[in-house]
Amino acid sequence: MGMTSAKCIGVLGGLGPYAGLDLVHKIFDCTNAKTDQEHLPVLLYSFPNDIPPRVEFLLGKTAINPGYAMGELLVRLAEAGASVIGMPCNTAHSAPILDVALDILHKSGFQGQFVHMITETAKYIQAVYPSVKNVGVLCTQGAYHSKVFDMHFNKLGLNVLYLDDDGRSHLQNDISNSVYGIKAFSSPVTNIVKNDVELQAIHLAERKADLILMGCTEIPLALSGTDFQGIPLLDPTKVLAESLVRAFNPAKLKCNP
Amino acid sequence: MGMTSAKCIGVLGGLGPYAGLDLVHKIFDCTNAKTDQEHLPVLLYSFPNDIPPRVEFLLGKTAINPGYAMGELLVRLAEAGASVIGMPCNTAHSAPILDVALDILHKSGFQGQFVHMITETAKYIQAVYPSVKNVGVLCTQGAYHSKVFDMHFNKLGLNVLYLDDDGRSHLQNDISNSVYGIKAFSSPVTNIVKNDVELQAIHLAERKADLILMGCTEIPLALSGTDFQGIPLLDPTKVLAESLVRAFNPAKLKCNP
Repeated sequence: MGMTSAKCIGVLGGLGPYAGLDLVHKIFDCTNAKTDQEHLPVLLYSFPNDIPPRVEFLLGKTAINPGYAMGELLVRLAEAGASVIGMPCNTAHSAPILDVALDILHKSGFQGQFVHMITETAKYIQAVYPSVKNVGVLCTQGAYHSKVFDMHFNKLGLNVLYLDDDGRSHLQNDISNSVYGIKAFSSPVTNIVKNDVELQAIHLAERKADLILMGCTEIPLALSGTDFQGIPLLDPTKVLAESLVRAFNPAKLKCNP
Repeated sequence: MGMTSAKCIGVLGGLGPYAGLDLVHKIFDCTNAKTDQEHLPVLLYSFPNDIPPRVEFLLGKTAINPGYAMGELLVRLAEAGASVIGMPCNTAHSAPILDVALDILHKSGFQGQFVHMITETAKYIQAVYPSVKNVGVLCTQGAYHSKVFDMHFNKLGLNVLYLDDDGRSHLQNDISNSVYGIKAFSSPVTNIVKNDVELQAIHLAERKADLILMGCTEIPLALSGTDFQGIPLLDPTKVLAESLVRAFNPAKLKCNP
């Protein structure tokens, strides 16, 4: 490496592919830049074909832990120069997966920073919405079962509200149905999915959520805006984008929380 | 590299940053996939900060050839596993820049394929629009001066039509004006730019273009659709996306020309 940046922001994408792009887009959007040259160096590794399904592993439907492939990809990102790394997938932050991946990364000698999307989101809620107590979360069945949100939110005094069994099962289907789900049709998302995701957000509002968290990186592809029926609607991908820019070069951050 | 893909599609992005994302988005869009795992492995290297301005070099306003930094980044992409590489920037395909970059790549021992966006576009026009003779090109002043379109289009029997001096200067300003241009405001593009890009497309239509080519990767951020006032409107980024998927794994190509 002679004339090009030794260090850059690394994105472990592919979980799914469009969610990886969405994070990089949000990194660019929150960077202070009027010319190409003022933007930050970013690497996106999108290897969806190599990473086994996360939800199925967390639900015990397969024994293959995707954390091993993710760990190997994190090492490849680090070797390519990534000094600050983020991963736009809430479910993959579940401890049984992320602990394995980060163990591989740290044993490789990585000296940089892995920015944890869910702890960043909890801190963001605490800082920006201090009166929020009950966070309604739209997430996969895998993230529900792993209790990844409870683990990181409860210690900051935030309660996590979920959909009931039926609602969670509908939402999982909105994400992964092979005929009309977001992973099969992201660009654009189908109307049937848009309508159902909205219905599930209404259910969280009825459960008295103080804030609705789009706790799966596929959800912002179906739902947008910063509030839902007057309740703050928060996108962890956007929080992660800002945290990555701040960690890499705070002077470059455009949208301050 | 144990369990993850040794080979992948590489994208040299950052020229500008959003154009790099746009290409990766179009690669995903033209891939046959209903699950994350069915998508192809893609690397995006977006190092806009390292690559000096292309237009200024081609116009003789600076002596720094961006081809050197681009060559180094191509080598880094290849070393990271990219076996099929594309670069979503028409201007950077100009011979004085690209020759330098590809020379560095090939001297590094690269055994893969660099997919040339402009020759792919010329072949696409010939195959899909056989009656087209006069291609109206919306491009930067750098691409106009380097004659990169003429070089690759003329040998397939296609004529290249340009805007007049005033139109080209307006279009360059739409791209790079630091207050309202596409490089400063991509997401979304400003209305003043949308309107002027459309006006320039009208001028090409008046010059009897049989097809309008969005010959700068920033243009599709301001103009969309597949025809303009009944004239085919072609996006070389989309052509490049399809060519990259075809070169990497033809069985995965969804949208056949």
